[in-house]
Parts: sequence; C-alpha cells; structure tokens
Amino acid sequence: MRYKIKLMSKIRLFCDESLEEKKEIHIDGDNFHYLSNVMRCNIGTTIFLFNEKDGEFESKILKKMKKNIILIIYKRIQYQKLKNTFHLAFCAPKSNKLDTLIQKCTEIGVNSFIPVISDHTENRKLNINRLKKIIKEAVEQSNQIHIPDIYKPISFKNFVNNIEEKDCMVFFADIQSNISFPKLKIDNTNSNIIFIGPEGDFSVNELNILRKKNKFVSFTLGKRILRSETAAISSLVLFNSTQD
Amino acid sequence: MRYKIKLMSKIRLFCDESLEEKKEIHIDGDNFHYLSNVMRCNIGTTIFLFNEKDGEFESKILKKMKKNIILIIYKRIQYQKLKNTFHLAFCAPKSNKLDTLIQKCTEIGVNSFIPVISDHTENRKLNINRLKKIIKEAVEQSNQIHIPDIYKPISFKNFVNNIEEKDCMVFFADIQSNISFPKLKIDNTNSNIIFIGPEGDFSVNELNILRKKNKFVSFTLGKRILRSETAAISSLVLFNSTQD
Repeated sequence: MRYKIKLMSKIRLFCDESLEEKKEIHIDGDNFHYLSNVMRCNIGTTIFLFNEKDGEFESKILKKMKKNIILIIYKRIQYQKLKNTFHLAFCAPKSNKLDTLIQKCTEIGVNSFIPVISDHTENRKLNINRLKKIIKEAVEQSNQIHIPDIYKPISFKNFVNNIEEKDCMVFFADIQSNISFPKLKIDNTNSNIIFIGPEGDFSVNELNILRKKNKFVSFTLGKRILRSETAAISSLVLFNSTQD
Repeated sequence: MRYKIKLMSKIRLFCDESLEEKKEIHIDGDNFHYLSNVMRCNIGTTIFLFNEKDGEFESKILKKMKKNIILIIYKRIQYQKLKNTFHLAFCAPKSNKLDTLIQKCTEIGVNSFIPVISDHTENRKLNINRLKKIIKEAVEQSNQIHIPDIYKPISFKNFVNNIEEKDCMVFFADIQSNISFPKLKIDNTNSNIIFIGPEGDFSVNELNILRKKNKFVSFTLGKRILRSETAAISSLVLFNSTQD
C-alpha cells in the first residue's frame, strides 16, 4: 500500500540553476537526502524539476552515488500558470502555528508574506531562511512554479505609512466589522493586501488607526474567534475564490 | 506585554455538569492544570463556563487549593448561537496533519467528523479520545457552544452505501471536476456532507463509484494540489461562507 501511494505521487524539486532539455543536474545536500532516503528513488525514477524562469521539466535519475545523484532532463512539460494575486500581511504567532500559517498559505496561493510587528505580535524575530524552506517545500508539493517572497518584519507604523504612499488596498480582518466577505469590493487591477492581526487582536489604538485610513477596508470572518493562523488561511481561501 | 495579552483573552472551559447561577463548580485534573499552571489564574479571576445544554456562564475563582479550584457561577451570559451545518467526511492523514485538520475544522465550524477508510487512507486506527480533546479545546477557544461529534472510522464502501439510504448530499473534492465552488447548488434544508480524499487522492475505482452516484456531486478546489488537510480546511471555509 505504501508503495502504491509513492508511485502515484509526483516528485517535484525546485532547482536554482537554469533548466533545459538534455542538461545534467547534480543533486546533493538536502535534496539528495530527500530523493535517496525519504523517497527511496532509484536509477530511472522520474523527477520533475522547475524554476521560476524556465518552467517545469521531466528528468530521470541517471546515476546514484554515496552523496549525490545525477539527473538527466529529457522533456519540457506544459505547466499551469497560476496567479498568486494577494499579499498577506500578518502578525507572526509562535513556533508551529507560524509554520502552519506559512505552509498552508503557500499551498493555497499567496503572492508574498509581509510580517508586521504590532503591539500584540508574539514573534518578533523571524528565522527567514527557515520560513523560505517551508515555502519552497509547499510550492514543490502544490504544483506551483512561483515562490512567494517573504519580507523582513516591519513595524505596524511603517507598514501603515508605506501603504499610504502606494497604489494598493488593504483588507483587514476585524471581528467588529459588519462587512462580511461577499460584500467586499475587490479591484483586481490594484495590488491587494490581506492584513491579519495577532492572537489577542490589534490593540485599540491600532484599530482606531486602521479604521480611519481610506486605503484600509475592514471585513469580518464571522462570529467564531479564529486563531491568528486560521484567520490568515481562511481569508486567503475566500479571497482566492474570487480568482479561480 | 505578555500580561496584557493574557488579560485580554477570555478563558473558556467546557463543563460536563449542569450549570446554573450561584452553583459552585469543582475543577481538578487537566482543567486545574490549565487554570493554575498555564493561565496562572488567582482567586477572583473570571472564567467562562459552558455546555451544550445550559449555555454560557460567567464564574469567578472562589478558592484555590493544591489540586483543585472552586468556581462560583454568578451570571448567565448571552451567547451567540452558531450553526455548524456541514459534516466533514475525510480520509485521515497521519499525526500532526490529522491534528491540524481536526483543530482548524472545529474552529472554522463543522457539524461532525466522519473518518472514512479508503484505498489510500494512511491512518486507519484513530485515537478518538485524543481527537475529542483537540475538538473540545478548539470549541473552548473559538467562542462556540456545540462540540462536533467524531465517529469511528467507517469503510469507503459502507459510507457510500449508507448515504444512498439517507436524505443527504455529499460534495466530494475532485481535481478533475470542472465545477468550481461558486457553481455548486447547496440545499440547506438537506443534510450536507463534504468528502475529502486522502494524500494520493481517491483510487481510480473509488472515483468511478463516486462519479456514478446521484447523491455525490464533485467540485474542484482549483489547480493547486492541496494536501488532504488543507483541502478539508479550504472546503469548509468555502461552504461555511454560504451560511454566515
């Protein structure tokens, strides 16, 4: 049974270098460990390689050595171009809640992650490289080509002031709002940001600032109190449903 | 800063026994540990108690001893009745993916969980008591009153045959379907089930069975390949958005 599942699933790897037919690709490090020990691939196994520039290619394992694997690319494949339209500004929760947020939002489809430090933000120093790894794995797994950016954390004040100068709209989740999602007017010619507060919500002061600004539009996710990461995931599902 | 967040958040506990004004409630075990060691509550701290029969009540800590706490209920509060309309049939993934599925779906709002054993289901023996604990905590946290049921795992065959005899519709996620969510006709006078396949999807045989049955309607979540738990969460967000 386990084998059956493994045979069915497509093995996809993001590849830093340029890709073209007949090229040999050398795999070592983490990717070698994944192919060799986790997926137990052998000579001849098909591996899909992709990057943002060249697209997606079918390759096969040509050689397998102690610490690396050589792949040969034999065919460029058509891939579905998926739009990742919405940016997600969020106040990072701690540890595995943050990992869930990053992994799930990447799978669902997001343009970029903007960590914001608000009054109640729990997690202020992010290990961006670790999060990039989670993003890369989620892109590999979910049949996408584009890797969402993740920015360095920015203060609430700077985030709000930056938006004022830019041509974009921010939709922020506010349990007291009476605008439910279907009533939102989303202009897709604009750059749109979804903004989710921390556990314990935005502070009273922050909510006052957000509610006064023209470029910020509140919306409600209903009467259930969602954890911060669940609110981010739910919002992205709803906003993306206007795109597909 | 940590204190500020704790003061803001409402402490809610599900209570097995009947609740009424002026009644004393004795807390021990896990709930004692949570109040005493995790939340560091003291005499006078407000605790919200609820059950499905009596609703929600405000109580205060009257006495604190070595291994138990006595609460006194002083006020019944109005609580928002939230409909948990949709049932979720799912093929259980392993370990923390299953925990994420159960926790997030409870938060978002679900009527009941129906674990189904399909050809590719990874996790066939569930620790139902452990999952009930996750459900209870998510209900406490998300301002709901009703505790979703979770049934014992049922075989794919029995699940499909049972549905035939009942007055309900099943919406099943199928990446090859061309019915996107907004096109689905959902009749809320019926009992509705959302059915999500395992990692590696339903088997060819199972898909053939599902596609032939009148009570089963396929829908697509888009072209991204979602993990099983992400598909469950996303579907529930979308279906619930037709309710609020």
